[in-house]
Amino acid sequence: MRHFVVIGREAKASPDFLLDDLPGTSGRLDVGLRCVRAGLLLSHGLRRDVVVYLVLGGGPRAPRVLRIRGADARFLRPDERSLAILARKALAGHEDTDATVFVERRPGIALARGGIERALADLGAARLYVLEESGDDLRRVDPLGPDAAFFLGDHTGIDGADRAKLAAQGARPLSVGPRSIHAEDAVAIVSNELDRRDAGAS
Amino acid sequence: MRHFVVIGREAKASPDFLLDDLPGTSGRLDVGLRCVRAGLLLSHGLRRDVVVYLVLGGGPRAPRVLRIRGADARFLRPDERSLAILARKALAGHEDTDATVFVERRPGIALARGGIERALADLGAARLYVLEESGDDLRRVDPLGPDAAFFLGDHTGIDGADRAKLAAQGARPLSVGPRSIHAEDAVAIVSNELDRRDAGAS
Repeated sequence: MRHFVVIGREAKASPDFLLDDLPGTSGRLDVGLRCVRAGLLLSHGLRRDVVVYLVLGGGPRAPRVLRIRGADARFLRPDERSLAILARKALAGHEDTDATVFVERRPGIALARGGIERALADLGAARLYVLEESGDDLRRVDPLGPDAAFFLGDHTGIDGADRAKLAAQGARPLSVGPRSIHAEDAVAIVSNELDRRDAGAS
Repeated sequence: MRHFVVIGREAKASPDFLLDDLPGTSGRLDVGLRCVRAGLLLSHGLRRDVVVYLVLGGGPRAPRVLRIRGADARFLRPDERSLAILARKALAGHEDTDATVFVERRPGIALARGGIERALADLGAARLYVLEESGDDLRRVDPLGPDAAFFLGDHTGIDGADRAKLAAQGARPLSVGPRSIHAEDAVAIVSNELDRRDAGAS
C-alpha cells in the first residue's frame, strides 16, 4: 500500500469555504485536493492501492483528517471544483464531532477527529517518510516499501510539533529533487518512482 | 529552455465555457490548465526557463494556440479556476482572428491561430519529444536538452495527423513510466528529471 499524508496547517476542516475562491477561503485546501488527484487518479481509473489523508488544521472544526481510499472510492473526478464539492459534503454535518475513529461519509471517503497522530495510528506498519528538500534522495532509498507512507506539508510546510511526532516515529526525511516544488508534483514524482520499481524498471 | 506542448483535441479555443463546470463545458481545457501549473510553478515562484503551449482544437475558433512564457508571465496562480479565468480573458476578443503569429494578450500570455504546426514553428532548434507509453525511457535518454520540447496529449491522446507531423520533424517517443498517467503528472515528472540533471544529481 501507498499512503500520502498531506498536512494543511490552515486547511479548513469545515465546509465553510467558497467553491469560487478555494485558495482565498479554504486555507489552501486546494493544495490537498490536487494531491488527492495526483495520488489516486490514473489516466483511466483509480489507484486501488493508494490512500490519501488530508490533515486539516484550519477553522473551528479542526483538527480533522479526511481519508480517501482508492480501494473503495467511486466517482472521483480530477478537477479541483469536483474534488472540493466532494470534500465539502464529507466535511458537513456534526454527528461525528467526537469520533476519533474514521467514519465513512461517502464511498471510500472517511473523516475522523484529530491531527497527524490520527493518520499515524491508521497507517499500521507502513514505513514512514517525510518529504523535505534536505532529505535522502528518493531514488537512492531502496527499498521504499512495499508498505510506505509519505508525509508532505502544503505551502506553509510542516510545523515543529508535527516534525517532532514524525521523528519520534522514525520517519525518514526524503527529497524528491533539487527544486522546491508543489506538494502535488511531489506526489506525482513519488508515485512514478514506486511505479517504476513495481515494474522492475527503476 | 524547456517547452511543453499540450494538445487538447477538443479543448475550447474560445472563451465560451463555464468556470463552474470546466470539465463539462471546455472540452477538458482543465487538463491543459493543470499542465500550465505543473510546468511553470515552483513552490515560491515561476520557472523562468519554461514555456507551455496549449494547442486548442475545440469550438468555433479552433485551432488556436495559447502560449504561456515563464520569462514574462506574472500573477500566475496555481488553482484551476484562476488559470481558467486567465485563459478566458486571453481567448476573448476577435481582433486576432487572422494572426498567425503570437500576439501577446496578457503579460507572458500570447495567442496565435493554428494548430500543432504553429507551436512547432515557435520552438526554434529545440529537440522534440513526444510522450507516449511505448517510447524510450526518459531516464535513459541523455542528453535531453538543453533546449527541449515535450509534446503531450490530453485524455484523448494525440491524433494520427499530429503524430505524423511530429514524426516528420524527428520527434522522439519518450516514456515517463510504466503506468498511464495524467498529462500534468507527466509534466511534473519530466520537470523533475530535468531539474535533477541541471543539478548534476540524476
